[in-house]
Amino acid sequence: MLEKLALQIGNIQQSLTPSLKNPALVVFAGDHGIAKEGVSAYPQKVTYQMVLNFLNEGAAINVFSKQHHFNLKIVDAGVNFDFEVENKLTNNKVNHGTKSFLNQKAMSTDEFHECISKGKAIVKEIAVQKTNVIGFGEMGIGNTSSSAIIMSYLCNLPIEDCVGKGTGLNNQQLQQKIKVLKQAKAFHGDLSDVEEIFTTFGGFEMAQMYGAMLEAYQQNMIILVDGFIASTVFLTAHKIDTAIINNAIFCHQSDEKGHSLLLAHLKAEPILKLGLRLGEGTGCALAYPLIESAVNFLNDMASFESAGVSEKS
Amino acid sequence: MLEKLALQIGNIQQSLTPSLKNPALVVFAGDHGIAKEGVSAYPQKVTYQMVLNFLNEGAAINVFSKQHHFNLKIVDAGVNFDFEVENKLTNNKVNHGTKSFLNQKAMSTDEFHECISKGKAIVKEIAVQKTNVIGFGEMGIGNTSSSAIIMSYLCNLPIEDCVGKGTGLNNQQLQQKIKVLKQAKAFHGDLSDVEEIFTTFGGFEMAQMYGAMLEAYQQNMIILVDGFIASTVFLTAHKIDTAIINNAIFCHQSDEKGHSLLLAHLKAEPILKLGLRLGEGTGCALAYPLIESAVNFLNDMASFESAGVSEKS
Repeated sequence: MLEKLALQIGNIQQSLTPSLKNPALVVFAGDHGIAKEGVSAYPQKVTYQMVLNFLNEGAAINVFSKQHHFNLKIVDAGVNFDFEVENKLTNNKVNHGTKSFLNQKAMSTDEFHECISKGKAIVKEIAVQKTNVIGFGEMGIGNTSSSAIIMSYLCNLPIEDCVGKGTGLNNQQLQQKIKVLKQAKAFHGDLSDVEEIFTTFGGFEMAQMYGAMLEAYQQNMIILVDGFIASTVFLTAHKIDTAIINNAIFCHQSDEKGHSLLLAHLKAEPILKLGLRLGEGTGCALAYPLIESAVNFLNDMASFESAGVSEKS
Repeated sequence: MLEKLALQIGNIQQSLTPSLKNPALVVFAGDHGIAKEGVSAYPQKVTYQMVLNFLNEGAAINVFSKQHHFNLKIVDAGVNFDFEVENKLTNNKVNHGTKSFLNQKAMSTDEFHECISKGKAIVKEIAVQKTNVIGFGEMGIGNTSSSAIIMSYLCNLPIEDCVGKGTGLNNQQLQQKIKVLKQAKAFHGDLSDVEEIFTTFGGFEMAQMYGAMLEAYQQNMIILVDGFIASTVFLTAHKIDTAIINNAIFCHQSDEKGHSLLLAHLKAEPILKLGLRLGEGTGCALAYPLIESAVNFLNDMASFESAGVSEKS
């Protein structure tokens, strides 16, 4: 695993002595109209409450970002709440949450393009600081539903294979989630255009992450891919340009049911399997020291030849 | 995984605010008589060459120890080479390698007890520095053979289930290794006393690690268990006192064939599966930041209640 990572990073940077500089982590938050349909264990207001928790440095991603010296940025991509203006929160709000995709498109094409350009702008700003490795996290009650249905379309898999318990549904609630997503799929019917699928079912936080990933690839950054939602966004970007996978490191395989199939679809090997179902970019931060180890051993370890160790007998 | 680790460490330290202090890593090196029987891909002299590599800070464990600020100690437990006296090497030499267990005991009972007391002494010294977390690594050409046969006795499994390709045997060499170990098992016959099994087949580096693990448990340190060899040594200690498992964190599941069965026997869940087959304590160092993350989130993350986040709806 470490050898593969070292080779990949060397290839990205076209260097035998690659380096990781000023790691950044951007957490996009947004609300989902579908949350009103009983698909989540938590009420929609948890999205804004968690954003406040991020700003107060009380969440898991705050702890892990601090541990590994990530530059952490919190972005309101479209939360259904009016935050007070404050420096620590980037105001990229496109709308007060998406519409319910049960019987309409979640966002307009204009909103989708606004998200892409706002997501790109953030990464361009970060690139000025010479950052060459970036992770993306998300917060949005309902976004495992968005991700599951997008995955179902893009991987051509039945809803049941893509849906999991999210933040902790019981079995009855899980059945309700599956029912709602099947209804939505029946309502919208066959869709094949990747960006149309995204606007129909996606969230603002996901669409901004999508723009951000495309820009990070443009900037030739190493892209740290987190859990189920971030991987779904990555899958969408990958459908547009498969070469983006050269820059992607899959950090953690979530406990969320669809994630293992999604990673298999991408032929991706995650570094960690810790059983988290947390999002926020936590997998990126937790895997980061292992990525550093891969770079360090390539740069600093002696070869058997240089150390005077005998070859195989 | 992180919640389990946090709970375990809190229990070890009997504290709701546990902490990790001055992590240490001790690498024991020793030679094995069995190495002459064609069981290893590398010649015996690689043991001393790698010790010199450790002292010159050129090995993987040097790189990873530096990355995570481990106090790294290299111990000559019984290498078949006379090192020049130098401060960086702890001279615990018991003999110039063990005897071949193909047709005799690898070490005498006196040598075994000398190893235990020398291993304990090292941990006692380290404990003075308030270290409360310690990992153990090893270097010894032939020691996957020692470990496989010990595992075969202690887990009551056939040799084939316990033997792997070590540092990189081809299929033909693997068959030779299996043949040699079966011959040895036939020669020594039924053995049930744990320490007799250890003296019959073990290495000096393994026996010193055994003493060191027992002492680390006495000192109530967190014990970081590395790969196949270190896990076999741990298994031996566990047969003597099962409670030692309360203090053990299994850091990495090696690619070496027997390791997954050995961990299953101990009902141990390793933190990492990176496909390393390296030893040296590398798994301990690589897993360490995740153990830190477990402690950090317990200490520093807000609860939903303290952060004002709503409960499930």
